[in-house]
Amino acid sequence: MSDTITLSHGSGGIQTNKLINELFFKYFNNPILDMMNDSAQIDIDFKKLAFTTDSFVVNPIFFCGGNIGKLAVCGTVNDLAVSGAKPLYLTSAFIIEEGFSIKNLEEIVKSMAEEANKAGVKIVAGDTKVVEKGNVDGIFINTSGIGSIYKNVNINCANAKVGDIVIINGTLGDHGMTIMCERNKLGFEGNLKSDCACLNSLVDVMFEAYEGIHVIRDATRGGVASVLNEISEFSNVTIALEENSLPLKEEVKGASEMLGLDPLYIANEGKICVFVEEDYAEKVLNSMKKHPLGSKAAIIGKVTKEVGKKVYLNTIVGGKRLVDMPSGIQLPRIC
Amino acid sequence: MSDTITLSHGSGGIQTNKLINELFFKYFNNPILDMMNDSAQIDIDFKKLAFTTDSFVVNPIFFCGGNIGKLAVCGTVNDLAVSGAKPLYLTSAFIIEEGFSIKNLEEIVKSMAEEANKAGVKIVAGDTKVVEKGNVDGIFINTSGIGSIYKNVNINCANAKVGDIVIINGTLGDHGMTIMCERNKLGFEGNLKSDCACLNSLVDVMFEAYEGIHVIRDATRGGVASVLNEISEFSNVTIALEENSLPLKEEVKGASEMLGLDPLYIANEGKICVFVEEDYAEKVLNSMKKHPLGSKAAIIGKVTKEVGKKVYLNTIVGGKRLVDMPSGIQLPRIC
Repeated sequence: MSDTITLSHGSGGIQTNKLINELFFKYFNNPILDMMNDSAQIDIDFKKLAFTTDSFVVNPIFFCGGNIGKLAVCGTVNDLAVSGAKPLYLTSAFIIEEGFSIKNLEEIVKSMAEEANKAGVKIVAGDTKVVEKGNVDGIFINTSGIGSIYKNVNINCANAKVGDIVIINGTLGDHGMTIMCERNKLGFEGNLKSDCACLNSLVDVMFEAYEGIHVIRDATRGGVASVLNEISEFSNVTIALEENSLPLKEEVKGASEMLGLDPLYIANEGKICVFVEEDYAEKVLNSMKKHPLGSKAAIIGKVTKEVGKKVYLNTIVGGKRLVDMPSGIQLPRIC
Repeated sequence: MSDTITLSHGSGGIQTNKLINELFFKYFNNPILDMMNDSAQIDIDFKKLAFTTDSFVVNPIFFCGGNIGKLAVCGTVNDLAVSGAKPLYLTSAFIIEEGFSIKNLEEIVKSMAEEANKAGVKIVAGDTKVVEKGNVDGIFINTSGIGSIYKNVNINCANAKVGDIVIINGTLGDHGMTIMCERNKLGFEGNLKSDCACLNSLVDVMFEAYEGIHVIRDATRGGVASVLNEISEFSNVTIALEENSLPLKEEVKGASEMLGLDPLYIANEGKICVFVEEDYAEKVLNSMKKHPLGSKAAIIGKVTKEVGKKVYLNTIVGGKRLVDMPSGIQLPRIC
């Protein structure tokens, strides 16, 4: 195989087949994919299906804690998990720039396979397009996924209720801050690491302890602020956060202060916000803390009795600050 | 709403929501999408599922007979249909260049909705990413799709048998030649039109007359030559085509001769190759001819008794020409 991707790798001919056989099949190998049909053919034994899609355009492609491939698997697995579904099957579609390094592509594909294995999902169908140099920045990946929705689970954005406790499974802003500092070479990057991870096993543990969980959402683009505003809007509730309860890594805290950024608005790729009935909050929190991806889980706020859709923060100095829906440009290409 | 796409439309904040509500929901509106969950939640009543994905990077974005949005819906619907599945649900993920015209985006989204309606599929989940000007060429769209596989249908690439008749549902090369001529302003483009269409209703009609159908494949990238070589390879058979039976529009024939191109290698977006047992071929052909998308259907060849995996053409002048798997660059960004 050549060292770089050429337009012929996307032409649907010999070189495309070679790339598929020698690279994608080497790592994504499974009986469904091996059928090489126009679509994956899957036997299913469930009645409620979750179906989701995400494209990934992150820049840089490789970052501390992951790469675009790992992110593409985790992102879609997490979208399924927070819908109350067991993630089962993924597709992966690549748009690659002519001249892209095949070694780098292999590293990305390998990460995807590793992450999919860990998460217990199969990559069953794919697509490869190559575009001329200068018409796409390196590589973009789309993953779509399906999962089976757990019986008796009803968690969605409109389901938060007065009195609910808001839990997060760990520190805020790790992914976004890592990307920002690496991209702009700000000097903090050495101590930063993306939290990019598949959270389905954590969500599984929570469902074992399941009672009183009303909402689970992953706090990606737009950060915790964005996802809480959406929940506030859909559930028609007010959410109060406690600033001194927000888990923050020292590195993220330091970089945020230096850059004048608010970690509530910075993207995560391994964090979920969970709304639980007060009586069950400790139980759910403890089940999360026992999981490696929830060891720093913390209660960060609650749904108040106030009327109206809003999110605010009780600050350390005793003030109250509105946490608005983000407006304007956050960091582009964070995921 | 502004006139052009800005980075803030992809930031996951207010502008993203505005774009989703005012543009995507306006056209893709359906109860599953309206739930606005992280994944679509779908009740299903079937046991065998088809799952597929495709990214679309066609250039130009608008062409005679369609645009990138129509193509994105048809391509995925067709991948499901040729797998013997009834297409049901699609996702659509957009990667858009900063500065892209919202008017053009609306036209694309409108086409997608129209085509999805016609094909009887629902767009139930989506994603929007915006990248900085110069980092993607206009707009790329990924669609993934799921369908229910018809009971008792077993059609796949490895299923062609000696004696099978090869049928195509109409003229060759219309899509690829349209794109090529429009992109390069070759002067033929006035008379050319892409064949881009959802073929599931045609496949439905064929399944009503279903008996003896062994393989259905859509002949997209790499053209009929590519798809027949794949079938030959997987089924371990030799396929003989008859040059004087290949349906060709005059415009495509003329342009191919002028440009020295072989229509067998030119992409289609509304053509399927069907392999049928000889005894049932006339019945299937007639059922296809009654459908608007099969009115020019024709028998173009058959699977011979010869040993070995190859595709050849019996030429008009009485010769025999090997039809190889395409190698090297065909036309990039044809779909």
